[in-house]
This record gives sequence, structure tokens and C-alpha cells, in this order.
Amino acid sequence: MGEFELIRHYFAAAPCAQGGAGVALGIGDDCALLDLPAAAQLAVSTDTLVAGVHFPHACDPSLLGQRSLAVAASDLAAMGATPVGFTLALTLPEVSEQWLKAYAEGLDRMARQCRLSLIGGDTTRGPLSITMTVFGRVPAGQALLRSGAQVGDLLCVGGELGNAAGALPLVLGEREAAAEISAPLLAQYWSPSPQFALGRALRGKATAALDISDGLLADCGHIAKASRLALEVNLAQVPVSPALVAFSGPAAARQAALTGGDDYVLVFTLPAQHLPALRDAGLAVHVIGRAVAGEGVVLRDEHGQDITPRQRGYQHFRETP
Amino acid sequence: MGEFELIRHYFAAAPCAQGGAGVALGIGDDCALLDLPAAAQLAVSTDTLVAGVHFPHACDPSLLGQRSLAVAASDLAAMGATPVGFTLALTLPEVSEQWLKAYAEGLDRMARQCRLSLIGGDTTRGPLSITMTVFGRVPAGQALLRSGAQVGDLLCVGGELGNAAGALPLVLGEREAAAEISAPLLAQYWSPSPQFALGRALRGKATAALDISDGLLADCGHIAKASRLALEVNLAQVPVSPALVAFSGPAAARQAALTGGDDYVLVFTLPAQHLPALRDAGLAVHVIGRAVAGEGVVLRDEHGQDITPRQRGYQHFRETP
Repeated sequence: MGEFELIRHYFAAAPCAQGGAGVALGIGDDCALLDLPAAAQLAVSTDTLVAGVHFPHACDPSLLGQRSLAVAASDLAAMGATPVGFTLALTLPEVSEQWLKAYAEGLDRMARQCRLSLIGGDTTRGPLSITMTVFGRVPAGQALLRSGAQVGDLLCVGGELGNAAGALPLVLGEREAAAEISAPLLAQYWSPSPQFALGRALRGKATAALDISDGLLADCGHIAKASRLALEVNLAQVPVSPALVAFSGPAAARQAALTGGDDYVLVFTLPAQHLPALRDAGLAVHVIGRAVAGEGVVLRDEHGQDITPRQRGYQHFRETP
Repeated sequence: MGEFELIRHYFAAAPCAQGGAGVALGIGDDCALLDLPAAAQLAVSTDTLVAGVHFPHACDPSLLGQRSLAVAASDLAAMGATPVGFTLALTLPEVSEQWLKAYAEGLDRMARQCRLSLIGGDTTRGPLSITMTVFGRVPAGQALLRSGAQVGDLLCVGGELGNAAGALPLVLGEREAAAEISAPLLAQYWSPSPQFALGRALRGKATAALDISDGLLADCGHIAKASRLALEVNLAQVPVSPALVAFSGPAAARQAALTGGDDYVLVFTLPAQHLPALRDAGLAVHVIGRAVAGEGVVLRDEHGQDITPRQRGYQHFRETP
């Protein structure tokens, strides 16, 4: 048995690889087999993370295991899908049992947190790279698309923004901070929580949704374009964490919240009548603006002045938008 | 719009990305959405190809486009699944429009040949690598597994073996040959045809199946292990192409047929009563041995002598088994 065969057996033995709801056949044959309930659709998304581009080569493999799955799984939350499973395509320059053990532990922790079963994959030799394909189920016709926003809808986000981008100097070891500041920022970077409960609660309510990976303004632009309208963002309403303000200062914190990626918080448009039900359900919903006629994204200050930046930069680690 | 955004639009415009049976939502949102008929299961498989490991860096991108999809899609054929769609995770060191155009053309050609819709993916910067995740549908309970072979079943393959491994000196430019010899060998390497029709015809008939990617003996070993029996292979019955014998000589041709990978021809076990129906349907079925009690794989010469090699080498380009 070759070393890569051994790795496959290693992942196949993980708790998250022992099957689950919707998994008729897991790791070990030519294909996995998924069952889908009647009147459901399967949601599918693929994400690749490359060492040196999307994460530092020297990072903690356990944290990488968590983050690599959470980043991919977040797309399921953004569709309002219930998690089912995922495949892992792992390319490794060499086989280090210590690295693998830690990576698999972090991956398994996030998989069980997300209720995602590892159903298959491929392990190859090459420059370190991770491709996850995630699967979820959603009642037919109820998936949250980007294209349904209506003029007059509220623009909302599911939590504080900018923490992941703000954490980069900590991630890269360029700066240090007291634990009460660094812990929440690093947690958002290394262990983002896909907002599955929020996504499911938005079915039949939100008119458009996605998870923020390119930055609030850029991702609002995706909804605006797909829905053929404009989105107004009120800067004063964009939620920013006290930890981020303390670490970066108010101006950089605001910048991170607007243009930093990698938060994986949902942004969505919502007819106002649905807001009370979501808040009654205990979900964090922050209204930050409104859908209006027009195109693109308009950023307004507390006086209603248009302060839209001409260029929307990216402050996250990724070199590719 | 960044250059990687442009690439996404490029693939989204390909004919194979315009949807198809079972694709409720294709490229462009957080997830794709697949519909599955009642009483069907979704078959899923992931394969990664890394430049310098699974294919030469300097190869023709159009041929690579064909091969990268065919290799992944073959796993669907091996399950008896009907093709539905695939995602493409493409990591590129730089953006060359010429390379991309040729790659996309080859990919699209194979996708349409296989009736696979491109439903999503990710494009990132990094060392050249391709991960495909393929989707097919199969009537619930009828997927062809590795584990169902019964003592007494015939051992069969769906075509000539060894051509892809035999083609390697041509692929790598180490040797040349006349077109009538090189063409069929190179075609098997660069454009393997997933045996979908054979796979579907084997539903309800074959007791175990897989597609040969590691080499006949190694892959028979996978069936033998999963089915808890032994498989006897009669060397004289293993089909080898005249082109391969002419190019490599009889001994090397035999070796390629037994241990060379990358043919993506189906190997399966079949109760003898089903053989006539398959042949009447015009399907190429070569009986090469039989399932017997025991374990592992036994290779026999024309006199019935056990000539099983002690070590099963790999002659294909891949460094990892």
C-alpha cells in the first residue's frame, strides 16, 4: 500500500467519514452515492485554497482543516441549504503524519459542527492545495439566489464584518495583541461559522442572499447586478466588532468591514415585514441599507452623503479576487 | 473585473455550461442546483490531476481539457450512472488566453461527448492543477459497486488494455511512430472514452465493476478485496491492440495491459447467463477470467500455470498510485 493509499484510509477512518443523513454510500468505491428527499434539490459548490495564495504555507494545519471546510460550506448556508456532505481533494508535497493528523482533526471538528459527511475525494502529490466540493439539500424552488432582490427590500447582514480581514496581521505574525482582542479576530479568520440556521430561516423570506467572501461592497455588487437594481449601504449601520476597532482603529476597521473578504457572514435582501419573525427567532439580523432603483452599490455616510469609494480594494490574504 | 473573474465568464460562456437535463441552476450563484428523478441516487466522484505528476507541463491544453474530464467521468461509467454534470476547480500559474481557449475547447468537446454540463467551479492562481467533481444519476440500489462479485462469475473487460500506458513514450516525446501505430495509442491516452453505455447495460447484470486506472491486476485486486474472493486472470485472454504490440513488442505490451494504468476501460464480474444479452446489444465484452474462492488476484498462463508477478508495478505517468 502506497503512502497516498494510507492517507485515504486515514481520512476514511475519521468520524465525519462514517456516513450520515442522505449518504447512501461513502468513501471507498468509484463514486459516493447520495439520496435526496422527494421535492428537494441538491446544492453544489466547489472552492480551492492554494498555499501561499489563500493561506500561509506555515499555518497551523488543524486551523487550516477547520477553515478550508468552513469556507466552502458557507456557500451552502448562502443558498439556504441543509448540509449533507463534501469531497476533499488534497494535494500534498510530501506526507507528514503529524501535519495530516492535525489537518484531519481540524477538518473533522468543522465537519461535525456543520453536520457534513466526508463522502470521497482524491489525494495526490504536488504543491499544497485543497479543493472542497460541498453538497446540501434545499426544498425545490426555495434556494436563496442572488437575483430576486426587489426595490424597497431591506439590505441586511448576519453579523459583524471585517474581523477576518482585520485579523490578517495576526495571521501573518506581523502584529500581536492581547488575547481579548486577538482571539475573536483570529477565530473569525480560522474558524468562520457558516450561517446555516440563518440561511434556512431566510427560505421563503429573503429575496436574495450570498455569503461575504469578496468584501461587503463587492458582494453587494453581485446581488445588485444579478437583481438589476442598486443597493444603498449606510456606513453607520454596518456592524463592526469592538475588538476590530481596538486593534485596527476606527478608519481601518471600517475599511475592513466594507472591502475585506473572508468573513463568510450572509448578506441578504429582505422585505421589511419578515424582519420581526427573524428577530423573534433570536437570529442576528443587522439592517444596513435598502434596495433601490438603479444599478451598482452606493455607500452613504450618516448624513446621507454618497461616499462610495471609486475602487473597491481587497485587503484579505488572497491575491485573486 | 479581475483576470480570474474573466476566466469564469469565459467558461460560463462555453456550450457545455448552458445547462442540461437535471441542472436546475448552473454557473453564477453561490451553488449550482441539481434535480434528481424520484427513486434515483446521485453518484459523485472527485479527481485531481497535477502538472508534472499526472500530465506533462508542456502538453497540448486542448488534449488536456479532454483527458482531465474523461478521467473523472469514467468513475460515473464504472457505477453504471447516467452523466449529469461536473464542477471544474482550475488552478493556474498565470493567465494565458491561448492556453485557456484551447483547454476550454478540449474540455467542452469531451463534456458534450459525455453529455456532462459544466455547473460550477473555482479558478485560482497557483501551480497548475485541475480538480473535477462529476455527477451522475443511477436508479436507487442499481449502482455497480466493487463488493458484489460472486464465486463462479465471469471476469470481463470492456476493451483492449495497455494502450494508454504504452503511449507514454509518445506522450513524453521520447519515441516516435508511424501514424497508424501512434494515433490509436495517443487517442487512448489523451481522449479515453468513458464507457457509459456499457456501464448502464451492466446495471442489474454485473455483480461488481470499476474502471481501470491503476492497472488491470491492481484494480482486480480492489474488486477481490471488496468482494472477499479471488479473481483469476488468464493472460492469453487479455485483449491487447495490434498497435501496442507493434510499438512495444509482445512482452512490454502484455506488461502494459496487466499493470499500466489510465486505460479507463471497465473491468467487471458477470454471471455467465448475462453474457449473450450484452453481446447481442453489440457491446464489446472480453471474458478474461473468473471469480473463485480465496483472496487476491491470480494470473495464469495458457497452460493454467500461476505466473502472478510478485510486485505489480505502475508504468503510467503518475507517480502516485
